Amino acid sequence: MKLITLLTDFGLQDGYPGIMKGVIWGIAPEVQIADLTHSIQPQNILEGALALGRAAPYFPPGTIHVGVVDPGVGTQRRAMAARIGGCFFVGPDNGLCTALLDRAAGDVQAVQLDRPRFWLPEVSHSFHGRDIFAPVAAHLANGVALDELGSLLAEVVRLIIPQPTPLAAPGRRGWRGQVIHVDAFGNLATNFTLQHLPKVGTPRLRIAGQEISGLASTFGEGQPGDLLAMLDSAGQVSVCEVNGSAARRLKAAAGEPVEIFWQD
Amino acid sequence: MKLITLLTDFGLQDGYPGIMKGVIWGIAPEVQIADLTHSIQPQNILEGALALGRAAPYFPPGTIHVGVVDPGVGTQRRAMAARIGGCFFVGPDNGLCTALLDRAAGDVQAVQLDRPRFWLPEVSHSFHGRDIFAPVAAHLANGVALDELGSLLAEVVRLIIPQPTPLAAPGRRGWRGQVIHVDAFGNLATNFTLQHLPKVGTPRLRIAGQEISGLASTFGEGQPGDLLAMLDSAGQVSVCEVNGSAARRLKAAAGEPVEIFWQD
Amino acid sequence: MKLITLLTDFGLQDGYPGIMKGVIWGIAPEVQIADLTHSIQPQNILEGALALGRAAPYFPPGTIHVGVVDPGVGTQRRAMAARIGGCFFVGPDNGLCTALLDRAAGDVQAVQLDRPRFWLPEVSHSFHGRDIFAPVAAHLANGVALDELGSLLAEVVRLIIPQPTPLAAPGRRGWRGQVIHVDAFGNLATNFTLQHLPKVGTPRLRIAGQEISGLASTFGEGQPGDLLAMLDSAGQVSVCEVNGSAARRLKAAAGEPVEIFWQD
Repeated sequence: MKLITLLTDFGLQDGYPGIMKGVIWGIAPEVQIADLTHSIQPQNILEGALALGRAAPYFPPGTIHVGVVDPGVGTQRRAMAARIGGCFFVGPDNGLCTALLDRAAGDVQAVQLDRPRFWLPEVSHSFHGRDIFAPVAAHLANGVALDELGSLLAEVVRLIIPQPTPLAAPGRRGWRGQVIHVDAFGNLATNFTLQHLPKVGTPRLRIAGQEISGLASTFGEGQPGDLLAMLDSAGQVSVCEVNGSAARRLKAAAGEPVEIFWQD
Repeated sequence: MKLITLLTDFGLQDGYPGIMKGVIWGIAPEVQIADLTHSIQPQNILEGALALGRAAPYFPPGTIHVGVVDPGVGTQRRAMAARIGGCFFVGPDNGLCTALLDRAAGDVQAVQLDRPRFWLPEVSHSFHGRDIFAPVAAHLANGVALDELGSLLAEVVRLIIPQPTPLAAPGRRGWRGQVIHVDAFGNLATNFTLQHLPKVGTPRLRIAGQEISGLASTFGEGQPGDLLAMLDSAGQVSVCEVNGSAARRLKAAAGEPVEIFWQD
Repeated sequence: MKLITLLTDFGLQDGYPGIMKGVIWGIAPEVQIADLTHSIQPQNILEGALALGRAAPYFPPGTIHVGVVDPGVGTQRRAMAARIGGCFFVGPDNGLCTALLDRAAGDVQAVQLDRPRFWLPEVSHSFHGRDIFAPVAAHLANGVALDELGSLLAEVVRLIIPQPTPLAAPGRRGWRGQVIHVDAFGNLATNFTLQHLPKVGTPRLRIAGQEISGLASTFGEGQPGDLLAMLDSAGQVSVCEVNGSAARRLKAAAGEPVEIFWQD
């Protein structure tokens, strides 16, 4: 059984993801299709790349991820398909697969989609998800070899995912980072991970004029309404309000600066 | 063919339900998965329990319902799997399966999920839907016996679902109840059912300062804009505005008091 | 492998589309089910008909489209199933399949759903999607012949889809039309298609006090913030803001008048 996932910024109102399923099942009737999300902020490639990076590790080897956050559709931006580590990506060559590339450590084989025989007969200027990416993913699922689908690509576009920078001040150490994702609960995921935490000692986190001391293991360590910092399910240090929304409480969004520091 | 449903408060923007599908299909590639809803109000267990109760009777015997509305994730609240009548439930032991229990009249076999070999290798503190409930549901679908998955539970948590109370006044009889669900059309489902209606005579319904006389059989009995009371598709007395939203019209939400009464 | 699509105005919060899947898979366990959209504006049959018309051509022959935008549920409006060209439609006989009929050019066979043995045992007054349309679609997928499902219908309800009217003025020609769809990006699809464009010369488009000269082939021909007119992926002339929302920019919705004209 082959598995295809869909991640787009199409929203759910217009039926575009459903249309892509029609194209896929017309070519590969037996594949399973999982929607990841269609609510990426329009044309926000970085948000899409991060969402794909959070989801992909939980899919079985061989899964084909179709990503369409594609402000350059119809321009010279290339269309691509790639094997990246144990999974596949089909979509625009605009950095949407950056988090997959980061994890694959160079084990990548990519092609430019330049062979129309694997596409729909008519290709629009604005909906390559339907006309190119969906049929290509379906042919991949049917067993067409990657290098049949197009010419080899020597390199693919990568986004720069914001990384924390060291924070040095007399008597203390730490990092300056930022919120990179706000989930539907209002939890604020930062770009701090386990490697930005002290081996001993209690870190303090500063965000939007508030300070949080220490890392909680679970929501249960606080009372409803408390602000906590904890490692979230994707391994990121996340700022949460117990039974509430930290985003609303702190009026914070993606990009909000955060500092983590401790006594040296 | 096995069937798994998903009901959560995760929303659709972050890709969490899709991640659960990746985990499930990685273990049980052939199951069908139906999303019930991912728009339960965050941490509103009662709303989730009622939604699950409305949906479950329409799924074939053996369906596995995974429910994740889980404010206690990472605390001492237990994780459970159960056969409840002819279906299965996997999720937190916090009352989310109450409506299933109410219908099964004691035909229940439940286990506490305490055997990590049926989980993902790493378990986070905040996403048991991905790390515990999805893989357990997939193993159930693959034919693992319920009592393999954990130790028997003698009892499980049940919510108190608000019930109408008798309303007695000189010369009239009836019930005092409340709105328990507002659907996307703005229809107000009350906790009155067939058993709260008079065998003869015309009931009157009072809500938000308005009175509605009699029960309609269909929307067609009113004109656009009329307020009607009728038995809805889940068997509840529901207050509806023909081609409109009773919730907006009456500024009413779940919890709004309602009275039904008739001449004795 | 049989394929069923679902298009409704139910929204995603209440679980109604999931319930329909339970009914379908209870009868036809192997079918694939694709959600088109459940976000049609409540009871807006025309919007539903247009969305179905955009999606259906991309599904394989034999696909069964279940459409439920049904303000007349529970009244005398008929329930129908039909083969329309190479696909099937199941839903209310209220015009929801108009765009399919327009494309099929008379190759239609329709029946009135009047045989309860193909329905759920109990039929509510307000949820025929669950009680009639889902089970009928599942029986169709299982191979029950169309004329088994009900009595032949001599004709079915059709909507009038707004068409452009010729615009005549000294020295210029063109059409007066309207916006018929606003997608999630804020692109404004008009009812102008290729046939409303001049064979030679540059058309001008007037909408909400703005004028746009010429048709772009791709978003890449403008700068972010530019207003462009282009043929969209459904073959309609569409007004778009590059990397933005034309709907917000022009404060325009479905029904907004548009003119296209050129020098004679």
